[in-house]
Amino acid sequence: MEAYLDNSATTRCYEEVKEIMTKTMTEDYGNPSSMHRKGVAAEQYVKSAMQQIARTLKVSEKEIYFTSGGTESNNWALIGTAMANRRSGDHIITTCIEHPSVSAPVDFLEEQGFLVTRIGTDKQGRIKLDELRAAVTKETILISVIYVNNEIGSVQSIEEIGAMVHELNPNVIFHVDAIQAYGKYQIHLRKMKIDLLSASGHKIHGPKGIGFLYVSEKVKMLPLIYGGGQQKGMRSGTDNVPGIAGLGCAAQLCYQQLKENADHMYGLKNHLVEGLKDLEDVDIHGMDIMEGAPHIVSAAFRGVRSEVILHTLEDREIYISAGSACAAHKRSQSPTLAAIGADSVQLQSTVRFSFCETTTREEIDYTLSVLKEVLPMLRRYTRH
Amino acid sequence: MEAYLDNSATTRCYEEVKEIMTKTMTEDYGNPSSMHRKGVAAEQYVKSAMQQIARTLKVSEKEIYFTSGGTESNNWALIGTAMANRRSGDHIITTCIEHPSVSAPVDFLEEQGFLVTRIGTDKQGRIKLDELRAAVTKETILISVIYVNNEIGSVQSIEEIGAMVHELNPNVIFHVDAIQAYGKYQIHLRKMKIDLLSASGHKIHGPKGIGFLYVSEKVKMLPLIYGGGQQKGMRSGTDNVPGIAGLGCAAQLCYQQLKENADHMYGLKNHLVEGLKDLEDVDIHGMDIMEGAPHIVSAAFRGVRSEVILHTLEDREIYISAGSACAAHKRSQSPTLAAIGADSVQLQSTVRFSFCETTTREEIDYTLSVLKEVLPMLRRYTRH
Repeated sequence: MEAYLDNSATTRCYEEVKEIMTKTMTEDYGNPSSMHRKGVAAEQYVKSAMQQIARTLKVSEKEIYFTSGGTESNNWALIGTAMANRRSGDHIITTCIEHPSVSAPVDFLEEQGFLVTRIGTDKQGRIKLDELRAAVTKETILISVIYVNNEIGSVQSIEEIGAMVHELNPNVIFHVDAIQAYGKYQIHLRKMKIDLLSASGHKIHGPKGIGFLYVSEKVKMLPLIYGGGQQKGMRSGTDNVPGIAGLGCAAQLCYQQLKENADHMYGLKNHLVEGLKDLEDVDIHGMDIMEGAPHIVSAAFRGVRSEVILHTLEDREIYISAGSACAAHKRSQSPTLAAIGADSVQLQSTVRFSFCETTTREEIDYTLSVLKEVLPMLRRYTRH
Repeated sequence: MEAYLDNSATTRCYEEVKEIMTKTMTEDYGNPSSMHRKGVAAEQYVKSAMQQIARTLKVSEKEIYFTSGGTESNNWALIGTAMANRRSGDHIITTCIEHPSVSAPVDFLEEQGFLVTRIGTDKQGRIKLDELRAAVTKETILISVIYVNNEIGSVQSIEEIGAMVHELNPNVIFHVDAIQAYGKYQIHLRKMKIDLLSASGHKIHGPKGIGFLYVSEKVKMLPLIYGGGQQKGMRSGTDNVPGIAGLGCAAQLCYQQLKENADHMYGLKNHLVEGLKDLEDVDIHGMDIMEGAPHIVSAAFRGVRSEVILHTLEDREIYISAGSACAAHKRSQSPTLAAIGADSVQLQSTVRFSFCETTTREEIDYTLSVLKEVLPMLRRYTRH
């Protein structure tokens, strides 16, 4: 049996996504910038995808911009607005549990002279709202918060944060990294007072190499990439029609089954967490089951290094992650786990299980049975 | 009969490209950053593509970085090196016939305080080497030259330029926009003393949304996009495995048949140009047939507006471009045509025909016969 439980790293493309992509690669392969009908046909796919995505967020399709993925969306959101609004202030607020695609461009902006405040979290990964409240000043131009944390699945009160920061400073730009949240939550952009929202294709069974940034019409920002003037001059480069069409398709499919999918994944999560609690020396990170994201379970198997668990499960065709895939290359300590106060034993032994809507209860049962079998052996080995 | 003569705007994907992309979307769909074997399998596609591309350029695969396309490659090459080398000098040299994905980031750098010299061309689109020679100073940090111009197909003496600029200033970084040249020419990076080279997937029957930047190991540059540290920290973001695999595949296929394809396209070009010369009031832009690029013919049909020709041919299923697709949205005057001294009549009436290796002689014959038929009518209509 195979159990792919690494859906927060990346997902399998939907068949429908594959189909629309192959069609736009070999039949309707025109360049949307071309004036002839092959260009117009290609442009139609782009317009449809903009509509499909705008509908999932209840915003105008004019506010959707395509990027090469979540990382570019986050970089553009942060660098593009910071640079464009420098005259209004030099203060940026973010959190201690951001993905590197937010924290690294923020570090870059700090090097460029911006002042950065990083808000801490409680032990469940909930950012401290009193700290945030105290941090906002009239110099604050940008606040960036991760909706669903990629490592532990903690979910922020985005609506509360949006209301609070705009009350404290009406000019502040509120960016939300929704890369792990889009396709899992109904995100009410206007109600939540979100000005910029980043999402990625390959986390929702769409293509890799594509993402979008929602940009509220009122936001002033600079492009990150200049050129032929595509996307109203804000993001140049030939439109990636197959990627865009695939993303639109995946977005629509996700949101058609949003509640059913979430219910299904919460069922899996509950089952996995209950099973893990029956094992010895296992700590579950993050919020209570229903409060955290439906698709992410982070657990520390005290006394066994995370890579050892990962590779042992891999031998049984169970695929999980040690920390997040994006940081896996670096092997550096996880800032998220540090922020929630994980101890050194937990830091070394934490792994992530992440589901999608086609993950089955049988896969969870299989994973639990393998864990039950191998953990005592691995612990003996470690303690030798 | 259909004649797609807009291959410089974009090309149809090879079947092999489509196949490897669908395989990596639905079977080997892992994230190369994942530590388990699905990640390793995905990483293998990335490594293979790096090797395939490195072989076509006779460089080390370590010098190949993937981007979201030619536009990002050009932006990164220019902004990344200018920002990283600012202490060594503030002077950038480019030409008057660059694609907007070079000229626009150069304009941005000029706004940031860099000094920019733009070298002119002769009437055939050949950049003035004496002007270039005179422009290089010890403050010059970066020189960017388009290999094959996208509008008129003029080809620069890259080897001569590379030798000259490095002799005048050994520290200068030489960037070549090869987006219309890669896959058409054998590009000897070391012999030509090229430090940075940009290329795009969808111009060579590869995917849209993917490109690469060759970066010589000696070049000091900053990333444009920060994050999880992929690609040695120089270009973060989950690797676009299907796009990368498709690009590697397309690159290999193009270079396997390089000479045959070029010969075939020169045959088509010769045939088209001879046919156009038989028509009245047609001016062919650019260099002599064999000196210019094999796949691009730019012609002015005096007395008929380019859009009128484009849409008339479109009705007969012949697809061409008015100017370049990337600038088509803007309808602004073409800097390239201005640089070669086109008069106002030519500026309004220039179109581009562009081939690929599967374009047939019959398509050219058909195009010529349609032109012969419609031009007298269109001219009567214009002169009314």
